[in-house]
Amino acid sequence: MGTDRPGCGHRGPPICRIVVGFEVVATVVNLEASRLEANKRAKSKALDALVDLVDEDLKAVNRTIVARMHSPVALIPQLAGHIVAAGGKRLRPVLTLAATKLCGYTGERHIRLATCVEFIHTATLLHDDVVDESALRRGQDSANAIWGNQSSVLVGDFLFSRAFELMVEDGSLKVLQILSRASSVIAEGEVHQLLTSNDTETSEAQYLEVIQAKTAELFAAAARIGAVVADRPDVEEEALRVYGLNLGIAFQLIDDVLDYSARQAELGKTVGDDFREGKITLPVILAFRRGDEGERGFWQRTLEILEQTPDDLGQAMELMKRHNSLGDTVNRARHYGAVARDALGIFPDSATKTALLDIIDFCIERAY
Amino acid sequence: MGTDRPGCGHRGPPICRIVVGFEVVATVVNLEASRLEANKRAKSKALDALVDLVDEDLKAVNRTIVARMHSPVALIPQLAGHIVAAGGKRLRPVLTLAATKLCGYTGERHIRLATCVEFIHTATLLHDDVVDESALRRGQDSANAIWGNQSSVLVGDFLFSRAFELMVEDGSLKVLQILSRASSVIAEGEVHQLLTSNDTETSEAQYLEVIQAKTAELFAAAARIGAVVADRPDVEEEALRVYGLNLGIAFQLIDDVLDYSARQAELGKTVGDDFREGKITLPVILAFRRGDEGERGFWQRTLEILEQTPDDLGQAMELMKRHNSLGDTVNRARHYGAVARDALGIFPDSATKTALLDIIDFCIERAY
Repeated sequence: MGTDRPGCGHRGPPICRIVVGFEVVATVVNLEASRLEANKRAKSKALDALVDLVDEDLKAVNRTIVARMHSPVALIPQLAGHIVAAGGKRLRPVLTLAATKLCGYTGERHIRLATCVEFIHTATLLHDDVVDESALRRGQDSANAIWGNQSSVLVGDFLFSRAFELMVEDGSLKVLQILSRASSVIAEGEVHQLLTSNDTETSEAQYLEVIQAKTAELFAAAARIGAVVADRPDVEEEALRVYGLNLGIAFQLIDDVLDYSARQAELGKTVGDDFREGKITLPVILAFRRGDEGERGFWQRTLEILEQTPDDLGQAMELMKRHNSLGDTVNRARHYGAVARDALGIFPDSATKTALLDIIDFCIERAY
Repeated sequence: MGTDRPGCGHRGPPICRIVVGFEVVATVVNLEASRLEANKRAKSKALDALVDLVDEDLKAVNRTIVARMHSPVALIPQLAGHIVAAGGKRLRPVLTLAATKLCGYTGERHIRLATCVEFIHTATLLHDDVVDESALRRGQDSANAIWGNQSSVLVGDFLFSRAFELMVEDGSLKVLQILSRASSVIAEGEVHQLLTSNDTETSEAQYLEVIQAKTAELFAAAARIGAVVADRPDVEEEALRVYGLNLGIAFQLIDDVLDYSARQAELGKTVGDDFREGKITLPVILAFRRGDEGERGFWQRTLEILEQTPDDLGQAMELMKRHNSLGDTVNRARHYGAVARDALGIFPDSATKTALLDIIDFCIERAY
């Protein structure tokens, strides 16, 4: 990523105070940094703009979330509420709402289906945290850290089942097909990811299969549903699916960059979680393949055998800088972002289309 | 249960060689024991008879199970195959097949739906083992003991998603409604059970709510589907639902008896798992409520604080004998069995009906 990382051109507070072990190239000047800082603010506005466009609908989704996570078993709304309240960006349900708007739909079905998408996502998060043994989620204690793995597994199952109930209430077999298929693929991708963990031989293609399944498939389904409820022609449905899929891939690529980046700390997340768990993400794959024998030995020791010293994360980031593996992962993300952008080409211009295009840049530029 | 426990009337090999800490009442004579031993053989024939009736269909279900747990991610069929091959009784899918036969259905939809029922059950087992930290399942190493909790969580998710895909392929919104509702209720019941764990104040009513949700709801759905695919009138659908629900409650009550019984060891399961985990089942609830202050102190120490000595399981079983809490749990099961039996009253006599009635006795008498 190197030359265009903003905010790290100068080395002190406030901008870089939480930079952890990340070196910047000397050519970044403060002027460039400020330009990009402004750019960053503009990009994060992209999400706000999209959210504003679907504001009323999103409020309805939030009400539905609260209503449908209700259970006489009090722990369920408590725990599910914790993770849903932690909020995140609600990016996936927002995609459904915006895609529906893009397709000119005026009914109410999208509210329930966007809720369903968020429940599937939340269930996945709960189970992920158990699998990863994460103590933090979006900068807060993760549900499993507070209530234990057992509750997280079971409440995840509950939300997942509730998601299916919501789909069934919608009553469209096509929607059911899309979302049940997405759920299977996500689960498959999660198992696949578990298997590539600690395996430095994982190829870029295998990594892409994993992130397409575990992340991008739900983005694709979320966007595609917009065309389905609006009963639009196949070509629009496919366009939204391709948009979501590629946006999802770009999103995950950047997520994997962020795990080795100072921005992560600013977002309230810890840096180096993937490293400590021995997850093989693209930044690692590129650094490993571009490195010499000694470097590969380093990656094998730290990620396969999980023998790590306190200095190793810094060393990993140093190697990534040497091989520009973060920068090139961002470049890969740009490629998928471009495909997502072109997918929307068939839709006439509108404020919603602009917002959906801007969100691509937001997903990528949040790396900075 | 006391007086009519067979096989424990004499105290040596072969019949009692694996009796663990279970005392029998002196009135049981060997003659009585042999009579009941013969009875037990007759009862276990009940399951065989039911399975024979649906033999061809069950083979088709087994083929569908293998085909539909397939995934390019090899760990998935491996792990799912382990738990599916471990086999168990396939009681739930057999219920769907038999109920369908009872309703005179001649199509093919029940194969897929019975597979779906078994997948939901298997997914639940995988997650249960993680939650319970079980090392054994049906006398074999549990999946989580071999492949780790992470795989069990994720492969459970996969099977669960696959179950929904199978339902969606079936295409009936009514079936989808029944099974998605059942899944939600199961998950809710599992969380509820987690909350009653280690709480000796749990009432019999709360315990019943838990087992109805976590176990009986799937039995109810499995049986009810038979009438739904055959497009039979509501009254038959309701009859099969009530049959399944009450059979399921009886089944779980006996399961909870077995955990404190010698028969459990014969089935290749360990005795006292519930005790060691501090699960509050009806045998405990009855013994606790019928006991004196000292006895309640014992239950609180062992099940709430989980301070257990090697002698405590024997002591627990002794207290259960004193208050006949195992025998009375079996009596409660008989009650639900009787309700299940009456529910089938509206169906004309047939070999399938007889087999479905006999299976009630099998579920209860397997306690012995």
